[in-house]
Amino acid sequence: MSLAQIFFSEFLGTAILLLLGGGVVATNLLPKSKGKDGGWLLINWGWGLAVFAAVYVAYNTGGHLNPAVTIAKVVGHMFDSSITLNGPELGAGGIAVSAANVLVYIVAQFLGAFVGAVLCWLTFKQHFDEDCDPALKLGVFSTAPEIRSYGWNTVTEAIGTAVLIIWVFVSGHTQSAIGPLGVALIIVVIGTSLGGPTGYAINPARDLGPRVAHAVLPIKGKGGSDWGYSWVPVVGPILGAIVATVIVFACGLA
Amino acid sequence: MSLAQIFFSEFLGTAILLLLGGGVVATNLLPKSKGKDGGWLLINWGWGLAVFAAVYVAYNTGGHLNPAVTIAKVVGHMFDSSITLNGPELGAGGIAVSAANVLVYIVAQFLGAFVGAVLCWLTFKQHFDEDCDPALKLGVFSTAPEIRSYGWNTVTEAIGTAVLIIWVFVSGHTQSAIGPLGVALIIVVIGTSLGGPTGYAINPARDLGPRVAHAVLPIKGKGGSDWGYSWVPVVGPILGAIVATVIVFACGLA
Amino acid sequence: MSLAQIFFSEFLGTAILLLLGGGVVATNLLPKSKGKDGGWLLINWGWGLAVFAAVYVAYNTGGHLNPAVTIAKVVGHMFDSSITLNGPELGAGGIAVSAANVLVYIVAQFLGAFVGAVLCWLTFKQHFDEDCDPALKLGVFSTAPEIRSYGWNTVTEAIGTAVLIIWVFVSGHTQSAIGPLGVALIIVVIGTSLGGPTGYAINPARDLGPRVAHAVLPIKGKGGSDWGYSWVPVVGPILGAIVATVIVFACGLA
Amino acid sequence: MSLAQIFFSEFLGTAILLLLGGGVVATNLLPKSKGKDGGWLLINWGWGLAVFAAVYVAYNTGGHLNPAVTIAKVVGHMFDSSITLNGPELGAGGIAVSAANVLVYIVAQFLGAFVGAVLCWLTFKQHFDEDCDPALKLGVFSTAPEIRSYGWNTVTEAIGTAVLIIWVFVSGHTQSAIGPLGVALIIVVIGTSLGGPTGYAINPARDLGPRVAHAVLPIKGKGGSDWGYSWVPVVGPILGAIVATVIVFACGLA
Repeated sequence: MSLAQIFFSEFLGTAILLLLGGGVVATNLLPKSKGKDGGWLLINWGWGLAVFAAVYVAYNTGGHLNPAVTIAKVVGHMFDSSITLNGPELGAGGIAVSAANVLVYIVAQFLGAFVGAVLCWLTFKQHFDEDCDPALKLGVFSTAPEIRSYGWNTVTEAIGTAVLIIWVFVSGHTQSAIGPLGVALIIVVIGTSLGGPTGYAINPARDLGPRVAHAVLPIKGKGGSDWGYSWVPVVGPILGAIVATVIVFACGLA
Repeated sequence: MSLAQIFFSEFLGTAILLLLGGGVVATNLLPKSKGKDGGWLLINWGWGLAVFAAVYVAYNTGGHLNPAVTIAKVVGHMFDSSITLNGPELGAGGIAVSAANVLVYIVAQFLGAFVGAVLCWLTFKQHFDEDCDPALKLGVFSTAPEIRSYGWNTVTEAIGTAVLIIWVFVSGHTQSAIGPLGVALIIVVIGTSLGGPTGYAINPARDLGPRVAHAVLPIKGKGGSDWGYSWVPVVGPILGAIVATVIVFACGLA
Repeated sequence: MSLAQIFFSEFLGTAILLLLGGGVVATNLLPKSKGKDGGWLLINWGWGLAVFAAVYVAYNTGGHLNPAVTIAKVVGHMFDSSITLNGPELGAGGIAVSAANVLVYIVAQFLGAFVGAVLCWLTFKQHFDEDCDPALKLGVFSTAPEIRSYGWNTVTEAIGTAVLIIWVFVSGHTQSAIGPLGVALIIVVIGTSLGGPTGYAINPARDLGPRVAHAVLPIKGKGGSDWGYSWVPVVGPILGAIVATVIVFACGLA
Repeated sequence: MSLAQIFFSEFLGTAILLLLGGGVVATNLLPKSKGKDGGWLLINWGWGLAVFAAVYVAYNTGGHLNPAVTIAKVVGHMFDSSITLNGPELGAGGIAVSAANVLVYIVAQFLGAFVGAVLCWLTFKQHFDEDCDPALKLGVFSTAPEIRSYGWNTVTEAIGTAVLIIWVFVSGHTQSAIGPLGVALIIVVIGTSLGGPTGYAINPARDLGPRVAHAVLPIKGKGGSDWGYSWVPVVGPILGAIVATVIVFACGLA
């Protein structure tokens, strides 16, 4: 695939991801939404199926939508040089692990997340215009911990991301024909089970792209964008992805 | 397929859709229902699986059930003349994009939606006979926005429909054997994530057919049918479908 | 298959169905259960996945578990003599539509439902021993309408069953590899959408078998078994099954 | 497979199971969690999809993750000597039913459950440090009955496990391509339907491994580990597994 094709695939996929993922948070948090206070399981299904939809859109590039996944592929490539970014073998549609390709993936993911957050804001424009706690408005864009402790918050994000990365590598060996539904259900369970403390960013682009959107958009009654926390959902997932990839290859799971 | 076969397929499918889709709203809203106040996720699963059931019934015609999907196919056909209404190639069961076929699809969808709404009313007849806010009774038939603003409501409906249409076009390229469950889950997530402001009609027939039923049925204690809003869930989805189709073909996703 | 094999298949399948289906109602209704007041969607998933489990157990006989399905097959056989009770063609494992086979199916279903209800009572024995409204204890075994009107209750049960039967006949033509999950999701949506008025028995054995169990078991603090209503969840589903089968074959859907 | 490969497969799978399964309980019970009081269906989906994720990780060993499953295979092997621990025939990747293999399976399951519980504690470290009822903190690790009666609690655990074991044996005969999603949904329904009285351990390792972790970890404000109950979720599942296996083979279901 050309760099432009790679870019559009990951860009549109991540935009859909944030439109739908941000949307379920907006549905749950913003005033006068029909799904107000719909609860944690609503959030978990919304994000899981947001990934479901987005992976279809970015299927040709392997549906990363997440720099932590892309980085895991790079690390995995150090262990096994036959690994490509999108799964298939090189020469049969496989996308080589090259600096240019990796850079395009990651840039597309951040830009897509930004644009998806903007679309989400437009979808819920009138609800954003209502009075409410500015922290709820920020919550539609980016994650925040319930108990702030950068160290432990990083641990939580790393563990959640590690589960995702382990699954990405082992799923190829398992007989199943459910396609993108597999990773969607993994996102559901990471949410139900590991999201309680920090809101499971588990994806640097998912958190930072929309945080920038929050900072620049003319959102009525918004507060600060909490830049002090912004590095945690970037560093935690990357650490978790690297550790998980090493475990996978050290234990011979991939 | 003959025009009669096309008609029965889309007609019965859309009738099942509205029977089940209207039913989950009735379950949630009407007095003395066992599922009263079951919540947003109940609504989302109910509508998603209503599409699941209905697509099986209308499988031979591609399970449109929605004029916005039919219109998207027409627009897609302008970009790629090999597109048929139900997916397969012409000559192997494919239904040609012709004026007669398109008209039958859309008429069948509106009539099916009307009949499905009537069946839903019969299923919940005694609960409709109870006293309650007339707006809840209308809500079983047609959507209404939480914050009325025809412009923004149209934007919300257009964006929700665009996600559906993009998925319809890209899903053909993805390896998965889950069949109609795929589009069902897309409807679930459009509901969880984009339905909060307007109730996600994302389908002109789903909204207008039942609105006519509401107007003509002898529903005890009913109020007005809110004709002022009735054009939004028609125009929004059509606009979204057209824009999405153009994006899909302009970006080479289909 | 021998009559004994047919018997064990439908008997064990229906026993599992009522153990799990009765169980989710017990979880929701009985005092001190961990899932007390878990809500309508909990009930819907519980019953849907109860069917999922039970169809696996009774897979060789087509997983009827329901006299309404068996009767629909008999009616369908009048239209198309190639229909067998379990789906495949005669001679390749197909079970012929004969009086003996049909009788064994239906007897096994009622006995299995009875035994499943007994197992459910044993599982929740201590919770049944707690004080609570006798109607809740009966509710674990059999359905009851929210607004009693034998005529309209019959209509509701017939419409719900008709959706199931239509799906059973059309699903064979649809590409999907999800197996028993398909019918499970149909049961979920019938519950979310059409179960609000009467509790969706949609199956004479599911309701009458456990009602007999309720009558004969030494349940602490039980009330009457509501025999006045007991014919509705028998007659409604049978009527719905017959009408649906006629529609399916008259419209050429099967 | 070598004993080391078997060990790592079951060990890592069970660790993921307890990380995610314990996590959803922590999400539901611990103070300041985003999913606090998310409800029974949240718990059920969390545990079901925890099994989904874990079976992928332990796919090569058949994804037992549970000594009751391993014991059922041993009992099944007495009836049918072609049974292997992981399903396929011997000689094609099948793992023989030998004392050494069985021992490694079970040791790996208990150690994995212990480590998964430790990871869960780290993920929710700050929430464990908050003040709350010590029984809730123990509840993240191990199950407890709502009404204590060792006899009836054992019956409940045995019946729940029997449903799982029956499904494990019959599922091989059913056409479906959903892979590990099948057993995940069985765990969901055992939870929705049979978990109300005792919290559905249905797995000796899942309960005892984390109970040991609870006893040895420096958890702030913890209470006792309830050793008096600890044998019930060991004995009940083993009894249920044995009885279910005998039923399966006596009725010719496998």
